[in-house]
Amino acid sequence: MEREDILLMIPGPVPLHPRVLRALSRPMIGHRSKEFGKIYDESRRTLMKLFETENEIFVITGSGTAAMEAALGNLLKPEDMAVTIENGKFGERFTLIAERYAKVRPVRFEWGMPIELDSVEEALAEGGAKVVTMVHNETSTGVKNPVKEVSELAHTYGALFIMDGITSIGGDTVMVDEWNVDIGIAGSQKCLGAPPGLSAVSVSDSAWDAMVENPPYYLDLRAYRKSAAKEVTQTPYTPSVTLFYALHEALRMILEEGIEARKERHRRAAAAMRAAAEALGIELFPELNSITEYSNTVTAMKIPEGISDRDLRNGMLELNVQISGGQEHLSGKIFRIATMGNFTERDVLTTVQTLERVLKEYNIIKRIGDGMDAASNIFSR
Amino acid sequence: MEREDILLMIPGPVPLHPRVLRALSRPMIGHRSKEFGKIYDESRRTLMKLFETENEIFVITGSGTAAMEAALGNLLKPEDMAVTIENGKFGERFTLIAERYAKVRPVRFEWGMPIELDSVEEALAEGGAKVVTMVHNETSTGVKNPVKEVSELAHTYGALFIMDGITSIGGDTVMVDEWNVDIGIAGSQKCLGAPPGLSAVSVSDSAWDAMVENPPYYLDLRAYRKSAAKEVTQTPYTPSVTLFYALHEALRMILEEGIEARKERHRRAAAAMRAAAEALGIELFPELNSITEYSNTVTAMKIPEGISDRDLRNGMLELNVQISGGQEHLSGKIFRIATMGNFTERDVLTTVQTLERVLKEYNIIKRIGDGMDAASNIFSR
Repeated sequence: MEREDILLMIPGPVPLHPRVLRALSRPMIGHRSKEFGKIYDESRRTLMKLFETENEIFVITGSGTAAMEAALGNLLKPEDMAVTIENGKFGERFTLIAERYAKVRPVRFEWGMPIELDSVEEALAEGGAKVVTMVHNETSTGVKNPVKEVSELAHTYGALFIMDGITSIGGDTVMVDEWNVDIGIAGSQKCLGAPPGLSAVSVSDSAWDAMVENPPYYLDLRAYRKSAAKEVTQTPYTPSVTLFYALHEALRMILEEGIEARKERHRRAAAAMRAAAEALGIELFPELNSITEYSNTVTAMKIPEGISDRDLRNGMLELNVQISGGQEHLSGKIFRIATMGNFTERDVLTTVQTLERVLKEYNIIKRIGDGMDAASNIFSR
Repeated sequence: MEREDILLMIPGPVPLHPRVLRALSRPMIGHRSKEFGKIYDESRRTLMKLFETENEIFVITGSGTAAMEAALGNLLKPEDMAVTIENGKFGERFTLIAERYAKVRPVRFEWGMPIELDSVEEALAEGGAKVVTMVHNETSTGVKNPVKEVSELAHTYGALFIMDGITSIGGDTVMVDEWNVDIGIAGSQKCLGAPPGLSAVSVSDSAWDAMVENPPYYLDLRAYRKSAAKEVTQTPYTPSVTLFYALHEALRMILEEGIEARKERHRRAAAAMRAAAEALGIELFPELNSITEYSNTVTAMKIPEGISDRDLRNGMLELNVQISGGQEHLSGKIFRIATMGNFTERDVLTTVQTLERVLKEYNIIKRIGDGMDAASNIFSR
C-alpha cells in the first residue's frame, strides 16, 4: 500500500498545504515568458522580506546544498582560506564543500554543543581567512547558532560571512542586513512550505566584489544576476517552472499569515515540543546555555531508555506519524521532530499523542496525557 | 489575464499531460523512505531502456546544464584537454563549461551546418584529448548530429565521449551502449514529458575509471552512485520529490505508449512539420546533406519575407499557440517549433493551422490549408 496518509514531522521536506499542491498542477509556461518573470520577481521580493535584506536574491533549481556550493564556489579559489564552523552535520558539509575549492581551517565543536566565540576568534586570528561559514539553525542537532556575533568576528578579521539559513528562514528571525551576512541561503522545502528542489541566495555588495573568475557554471551567481536584470526577469538555465509556481504560492501564504505571526507559531510549537519532552521525562539532546539557543524549527531528543530508535520511529510510523532519527554518529541515539512550515498546533499535539502511545506501549510512561497537557499549556498561554 | 490556455510548442519545457499534473500533487514523502527509493529505482530502470544502456543512471535535481557540468566536472582537471564540437548554442555551452575546468580545443561549425568528421579527426589527431563532447540533437538549430561516428573517432584517439541527449532521449533513438557513449544526458522537460528541474546521466565503466578526485560537490557522481547503492536507494542531497513523482508518471506513460511507437510519433510529427513548411514556401534553416540529419523533435525554419519574428510569434501567441524564436545571432532570423513529449497529431495540425492564419494575415500565403494538407498527408501515410 502506498503511504499517502502520513503526518510528516521530519525536518524537510515538509508536508505541502493543499494550496501549494494545487499550484503545482498549473499548466506549463515558457521559462522566458513575462508570466514566469512576474512569478520570479514577486517571489524574490517576498524572500527579501524574509531574509530582511536589500540585497538581491536569486533562486537556484537545486537543493540547499547547491546553494551552499554556489556561495563557496563563487568566492573561493585554491589559494584562499575558509574558516568553517562545525557543530553538526550541515556545518561539516560546508567544510566538505570548501575543501573542493580552497584551503580550509575548520573550527570544530561537538555535535549539539554551542559555538564558543573564543575558538572562532582564535582561528580567525591566525589570519588569511577569506570567508567564514556557519549554519544558523543546525538541523542535525536542534541548535540555533549565534549569527550576529560570528558575523561580527568574521568582518573584524576582514572575512566575508556565509550563513546557511536553510532551516530558519521563513520560520525564525533572520536579519541578513542587520547581521551583515554576505551570502544567506534558504531552502524551499523547510520553513517556506514549498516542495524540495529550489534554494535561494542573497548576495551582498562585498560578496559581489570578491567573486572569483571561474565559479561552477551552473551555480555562477553573476550569470543569475545578469539574467535577472534582463527586460523580462529570468534565470540563466531552465528553472523548474512547476516548483516556482509552488514557491510563489507558498510565499503568498506566508505574507497572508504575516511573517511575525509565522515566526511566533514556530517558536511556540518548538516550546510546546520541549515542554512535552520534559513532561515525558525525555532529555533534550543539545546541551545549551540558554533557551534562545534551542532551534525553533526542529527539536532533537535522546532516545529514552527502554526503547530502540527503530521501535520508536517504526511505532510512530505505524500510527501514521513520521519523525526523524539521528544522522551519522547520532544514529540510534537521538530522534528529531520538526515544527517547520505550514503545520498547525493540531499537528504538534497529534505528534505528541502518538509519541505517548508508543512510549506507553513500551512501559516508558505509565499514562497517556502528560506530554499533551504540557504542550497544550504552551499553546494556551 | 494569466495565460493558462496556451498550446506550448517550444523546445522545452513541454506541456504536461493531465496524468503528470496529477502526479505532481501527491502528498510529500520523506526522501530517504522506501517509497521514494522505489520511485527512483523504477524511474532509473525505465531511463536505462530509453538510453539503451546497461550503465547505471542517476537523476540530478537541476537542469540539463547541471548534468552537462556533472559530466565535465567529474572528468576534467586543469591540465586535461576537452575537444568540444559546436554547431549550435548547446554545443557552445559544453565549451563554456569545459573552460571552467580544463583546456579546451573547440571544433567549430556554423550554426545549422552538419558536423564534418574530418575536422573532428584533425582536432583529435593533435593529441591529448581526455574527453570529446557533442550535442546529439541541437535544439538551437534543429540538427541531429552523428553520435556513433564521432564517438568512434573519440575512442580511436583514446578520449571519452560525452553526449548531450537532452532533447533526443525519449523522442528519438539513442543507443548509449551500441554507440559507446561514456556519459549520456537527458532532460526531464523535453521528450520525457515531465516538468523542468531534473536531469539524468548514464556513466560507463571507463568514465568511472577516469574520474577526478575533486569534482563539484553537488554534482559529484560518485556520491550519487554511493547513495544509490544503499539499502534504500536514495540521492546524496535532498531530491525534488515532487518532480520525481512527475518523472515517474511520465516514464510510465512512455512504457505504456511503447518506446518505438513514441519515437515514430516524434519522427512523423517532425516530418509533417517539414512538409507543411515546404508547402507554405518556408525554408528550413539547417543546410543538411540528408533527411536523417534533421531533428525529429524540433524544426527550425527561416522567418519568411514580409513578416518580422516579433509579428510572427506574437501573432501566433495571440491565437494561443506559443513557438520559439532563434537564439543568440539567430534571433530575428529563424523560428522553431518543437514536436516533443506528449503532443498529439492534433497539436501539430493546430500549430500549422495557426501559423497559416498569421501568414495569410500578412499576405505571405494566399489561402489557408496547404500546410495542413501536406502535414495531414504525412500522418495519413
